[in-house]
Amino acid sequence: MTSILTVGVAVIDFVFRVEDMPKPAEKTRARDAAVVGGGCAANAAAAISRLGGTAHLAARVGQDMVGDMIVSGLRDEGVDCLLVRRFENRRSSYSSVVVDRHGERMIVNYRDETLDFGAAWLASSDLPDFDAVLADTRWPEGARVAMEKARERGAPGILDAEPPVREAQAALGIASHIAFGQKGLMDLTGEKDVETALRAAAAETGAWVCVTLGENGVTWLEDDGVAHMPSFPVEAIDTLGAGDVWHGAFALKLGEGSGEREAIRFANAVAALKCSRFGGRAGAPRYEEVEALLAEMR
Amino acid sequence: MTSILTVGVAVIDFVFRVEDMPKPAEKTRARDAAVVGGGCAANAAAAISRLGGTAHLAARVGQDMVGDMIVSGLRDEGVDCLLVRRFENRRSSYSSVVVDRHGERMIVNYRDETLDFGAAWLASSDLPDFDAVLADTRWPEGARVAMEKARERGAPGILDAEPPVREAQAALGIASHIAFGQKGLMDLTGEKDVETALRAAAAETGAWVCVTLGENGVTWLEDDGVAHMPSFPVEAIDTLGAGDVWHGAFALKLGEGSGEREAIRFANAVAALKCSRFGGRAGAPRYEEVEALLAEMR
Repeated sequence: MTSILTVGVAVIDFVFRVEDMPKPAEKTRARDAAVVGGGCAANAAAAISRLGGTAHLAARVGQDMVGDMIVSGLRDEGVDCLLVRRFENRRSSYSSVVVDRHGERMIVNYRDETLDFGAAWLASSDLPDFDAVLADTRWPEGARVAMEKARERGAPGILDAEPPVREAQAALGIASHIAFGQKGLMDLTGEKDVETALRAAAAETGAWVCVTLGENGVTWLEDDGVAHMPSFPVEAIDTLGAGDVWHGAFALKLGEGSGEREAIRFANAVAALKCSRFGGRAGAPRYEEVEALLAEMR
Repeated sequence: MTSILTVGVAVIDFVFRVEDMPKPAEKTRARDAAVVGGGCAANAAAAISRLGGTAHLAARVGQDMVGDMIVSGLRDEGVDCLLVRRFENRRSSYSSVVVDRHGERMIVNYRDETLDFGAAWLASSDLPDFDAVLADTRWPEGARVAMEKARERGAPGILDAEPPVREAQAALGIASHIAFGQKGLMDLTGEKDVETALRAAAAETGAWVCVTLGENGVTWLEDDGVAHMPSFPVEAIDTLGAGDVWHGAFALKLGEGSGEREAIRFANAVAALKCSRFGGRAGAPRYEEVEALLAEMR
């Protein structure tokens, strides 16, 4: 079984579905609500586990009840949480996500800024066997250690690059693959044109680079040119966590030994299926569903 | 030790402090956050316990992790939760409360409407000894049973009447005391004038009635006239849960055998102290603090 180590952020989102967006000084009754695990690395790990991979998550969480919810939700998804470190007297991160009837979202998030940013404990941990490593840029020190470990073992080291990307500068130079979001790519390079920006990012980092454009697919550099893969056509019900799930699927395929093009196609199918259902990462698909969609669209 | 049974709603509030109110399609970073227990009856129980009384809470909560947080927070406050019933496959209630730098609040709340509204289990439960009963109108069947039990034992039965008050019609006719909020009083009587409304409420219910007016104090009927007690002057930092804490303190004093006027003065002092601190019911004071304020203001 392919084994992926994901490193980064794990949170809880309290999601409320409302008719209309709430206004100040008002009390709005939600017509539905869900407590949904979130965070880039955690969502990716949950998606990998659903797809039949072995997912090991390394993350920092407070020793509090929100942290209990985070870990419990991940264990329910089959994610190995041995490297999820709990910090005494620190609080876990959580968000309130309000979604109105048009699918528009309003997010308020809280992060305990006193949570230790260091990753020396991870560097000296006894890591499990893995076929690829995926890290998000929200925990820069963790990302750096993750990319070093991948390089040491000769496995793909994939970075999910979101702003502020420069904070994860050290990891950028070690990663074998960097998958930018549109904002992350602009944030790093200052370039608006996708091809120019990708070339600048590749020149600076020496990594294979791509940018995920949501419903507009994925663009990457290939054979001195630019390649593009469109997204799969779906009715998007809920895009929460779609990018994270994409990264998890992409890392899984690279870990299995697939080429980038094949991995992108697979990840696009996974993200499309996720977006067709409500509930954040809880909408991530099983392997068979992805195979079925890929066969259908061939 | 004076023992109070409170019956009604127990929830969790996820409170976020922000600079400016969030807007749709934006991600707002909170500068602070707190997971705070809430719900009328639960807040009242926590306040009673802090004031040195014995607080027994009867409430309905889902068998979920949010429910675990609710019960755990109440136990930490010394509240007896033997009558907090957990329902399998049901979800607990929770809210997102966003407070901006001006103290303005934006609330989105979720309640599982499939949570069994019946209170037959409470009626047939082995209730603890109590000196008074307090119920909120958010669980109408529970409130009815609570008021019946109080009447059976000859103890004060106090109703915290918030809209929609008519849903708790049965309890209204049995309560010995009804403390309305301004909206609750208008909702029941359709009268805008406070005295007219109080007289209508007293005539309909046969109970002793008052209305709590926040910073404008409390008005009630006494000796065929209208009596008024101003609130204590404080700089209000956080009014979340102030009304609930007031009701808890009022019930405790009536349970101790005090008259209504004395109970109102005590409850006003308790609510004022609570409002002077951030953190919802976590700002509720100890008995000694209340005594000190009352002595100072005499």
